[in-house]
Amino acid sequence: MDTIAAYEELAARLRRIGALEEVAGLLNWDQETQMPPKGGAQRAEHAAAVASAIHDLASDPRLGELVAFAATAQGADAVNVAEAGRIHRRAVRVPPALAADLARASALGQEVWVKARTASDFAAFAPTLERIVALKRAEAECLAEDGISGYDALLDGFEPGTTAAELDAIFARLRPGLVDLAGRIAAKRPSAPAIAGQFPAEAQLALARRLGGVFGYDWQAGRLDLAVHPSCSGSAGDVRITTRIDPSDPQDCLYSTLHEVGHAVYEQGLNPAQAMLPAGMHASMAVHESQSRLFENQLGRSRAFCDFLFREMQTGLGSAGVADPDALWRLVNAVQPGFIRTEADEVHYNLHILMRFDLERALIAGSLPVRELEAAWNARFLADFGQAVPDARRGVLQDVHWSAGLFGYFPTYTLGNVYAGEIHAALQRDIPDLDARLAAGELGEVVAWLGERIHRRGRMVPPTRLIAEAVGRAPDERALLDYLEAKYSDLHDL
Amino acid sequence: MDTIAAYEELAARLRRIGALEEVAGLLNWDQETQMPPKGGAQRAEHAAAVASAIHDLASDPRLGELVAFAATAQGADAVNVAEAGRIHRRAVRVPPALAADLARASALGQEVWVKARTASDFAAFAPTLERIVALKRAEAECLAEDGISGYDALLDGFEPGTTAAELDAIFARLRPGLVDLAGRIAAKRPSAPAIAGQFPAEAQLALARRLGGVFGYDWQAGRLDLAVHPSCSGSAGDVRITTRIDPSDPQDCLYSTLHEVGHAVYEQGLNPAQAMLPAGMHASMAVHESQSRLFENQLGRSRAFCDFLFREMQTGLGSAGVADPDALWRLVNAVQPGFIRTEADEVHYNLHILMRFDLERALIAGSLPVRELEAAWNARFLADFGQAVPDARRGVLQDVHWSAGLFGYFPTYTLGNVYAGEIHAALQRDIPDLDARLAAGELGEVVAWLGERIHRRGRMVPPTRLIAEAVGRAPDERALLDYLEAKYSDLHDL
Repeated sequence: MDTIAAYEELAARLRRIGALEEVAGLLNWDQETQMPPKGGAQRAEHAAAVASAIHDLASDPRLGELVAFAATAQGADAVNVAEAGRIHRRAVRVPPALAADLARASALGQEVWVKARTASDFAAFAPTLERIVALKRAEAECLAEDGISGYDALLDGFEPGTTAAELDAIFARLRPGLVDLAGRIAAKRPSAPAIAGQFPAEAQLALARRLGGVFGYDWQAGRLDLAVHPSCSGSAGDVRITTRIDPSDPQDCLYSTLHEVGHAVYEQGLNPAQAMLPAGMHASMAVHESQSRLFENQLGRSRAFCDFLFREMQTGLGSAGVADPDALWRLVNAVQPGFIRTEADEVHYNLHILMRFDLERALIAGSLPVRELEAAWNARFLADFGQAVPDARRGVLQDVHWSAGLFGYFPTYTLGNVYAGEIHAALQRDIPDLDARLAAGELGEVVAWLGERIHRRGRMVPPTRLIAEAVGRAPDERALLDYLEAKYSDLHDL
Repeated sequence: MDTIAAYEELAARLRRIGALEEVAGLLNWDQETQMPPKGGAQRAEHAAAVASAIHDLASDPRLGELVAFAATAQGADAVNVAEAGRIHRRAVRVPPALAADLARASALGQEVWVKARTASDFAAFAPTLERIVALKRAEAECLAEDGISGYDALLDGFEPGTTAAELDAIFARLRPGLVDLAGRIAAKRPSAPAIAGQFPAEAQLALARRLGGVFGYDWQAGRLDLAVHPSCSGSAGDVRITTRIDPSDPQDCLYSTLHEVGHAVYEQGLNPAQAMLPAGMHASMAVHESQSRLFENQLGRSRAFCDFLFREMQTGLGSAGVADPDALWRLVNAVQPGFIRTEADEVHYNLHILMRFDLERALIAGSLPVRELEAAWNARFLADFGQAVPDARRGVLQDVHWSAGLFGYFPTYTLGNVYAGEIHAALQRDIPDLDARLAAGELGEVVAWLGERIHRRGRMVPPTRLIAEAVGRAPDERALLDYLEAKYSDLHDL
């Protein structure tokens, strides 16, 4: 069989897998935004059937043969062949029944989690989570290869080529810097700024849509809905985001939206010539998160952008709820240790992640039984944040991830923040009038920069190299720490 | 392999197929209600990938083996084994590439149709329809077996065991009765009743939801959305319907909704012990349509129900737009030959269907080229309805079916009306105070009757036998003609 014919058949199979992965994403979006209450049990079967179909395609011996036949492909084709090999190797190691069980348990897990979270009842969720952890441990065992085992095998599914040991090295340097900065800010006993007024849901959503457009989100290829947990799903011509509304705190909706818009603009900016193929897919979850956190934080919480946002809130919501852009900037950058990761300030956010990273590694290693997870969570939170967790809703039940079987995902958030720090530094270098653009709400050049250096490149090079080539140096945690130091020095006169 | 083990493996495979069919339904629902404008091309790939996955499962030689191993299964298991055999035989005859092409062409076809319909431009749709017809003819050729060929092979996918010749026999007796009745009504030159006022969309939707509840629709297991073409999709705990709104004509929304609620209550009432298995699926499209037309017409347009509906419209819409329940009854039963099938009265509706039945048989037979379809449509319409079709939007482009590859579907509408006539006669016999219940909006006993005799029985017996056992005699067209004769005699003093 010649390379060209083999590649074409391989690509057709990869596109089917890519299409079914998008279908799986849509099932999840629908479950969180549209599905009637009694649809949960069926939806678990839908998810399992699609996962099984993906698994059948990925584990098909024919795909392995085609990888061998197409071994001399070049360029983007070579990337797709290599990814096909990786997908095939991972799939043949996981028995079909386990793949279907995982999909079913994750879909059901989210249903149980939603109810348990509402009731703040970890015991109601624990048996479900125990089952999920057992399945994920079984999966990790199946996936082990080339010295990559246990937690690393799961992490590899989100962040190809990165190990927990490598993350440990970065996090070990990051952590003291964050703890030190948090301590110096706390010593200043900053007053908590407050926002005044009520902000109707419809006006918040309209402003969220407006901000999405400013940041380059094509609404003809997307939509915004409400959900318990803000998220982004889909790619190319159909990228959907969700957000949530607090009538007394528009920041929750607006900054959740900016975050998801960062993800969405990445997906909309992928190379259409490689649609549904690995070379046209996001590089890794950390690269994805770098885009969302950059929009939300480095850009969205900058002093310059607060000039723009203040005006937009006055126009769109009738009031910004604070006196002036400077007060808005202080408001959206308030530092206070809180219980909820997604509401955390930029100093404490990564401390939340580091804690989850350690806990989920212990769960997968088997050194922390699920029944002890809540106690372990609460003890660690008290140690890291100096506060006692009041209830499971604000503690161990706050995140959807574990209920959906997403182990190995959390640390990519902090790695994404590290990458966002590097990208922000590069943007400041390459777009000297960045602040003026942010103040005017003119983000076109920023989006073009990201599109060319990151979005359109898809999976053409490994994630670390992608970031290094985009910013011009090997990424590390210093840019993020320097950015935080500068920002909070300005804010608190450190 | 013993029968029990074989049956269990067979059932698991059937459930996967059933789940993927529900996913395909959801993709279609999402496309018509939620999908952003630029999502169409991808959605075609999603639909093709799911169709391919279904085809892979259905054509898997293992399924054929299991049918043989489980041949001695009893009861519902036997029904599932027989259906597995039928699914497998149909699937192995259609090459995978053709199955995928059909799914892709149908998804794209709907996109093209929506645009062409809006522009009233048949030429813009013709090349797409040509491709779909060619694919359906190829499919029909593949499916031919045991003397069932061409159009019959497609019809068999919607109405198992029924042939076009059998339909011809019923329709040949039905048609003169309808033409005669239409003529006698027209001779009376009935004045066209009118409705006065504007009825806001939200109030119409709220009333539609209320009526759904009255007819037994469980809203915890469903939802109502807007779409170009009203429809029902899903089963069991997740059955979704769509409707449309005309602010000056609430009948459009309300009766479309009653129609779809008839479908939905059927799907919600299937046997949960046979979920996602053939024995727990609807018996045929005609049986499905009998439920929707019964709700919409025999019950929904009855004089008694108009008492209830008049009160509900006063409460829910502020006004019924007419003076009294009698005027409402005359309004919702107005007879006038119109261009649009879905807006047709009960006398003309089946004449619309009979025309489509003949045209689509000619398309599949190859005796009518697609490029001549619009002219053939217009000529036939003039002959049957005495009116010249003013534009394609009100003519050949009005229905979604052909754009979605649904050939062999239309005649099941009229067969469903025939069944609804029989069921209505049986309900009148078995529930003597039916009129009082309709006037009070108390449909519980009706829904229970249908649930026991039709819904819960699923596919346990062939459709004709199911109806015969439900009503106590072999169904034919006389009950429908008698019902129409009685109703329109009352209305027009014939």
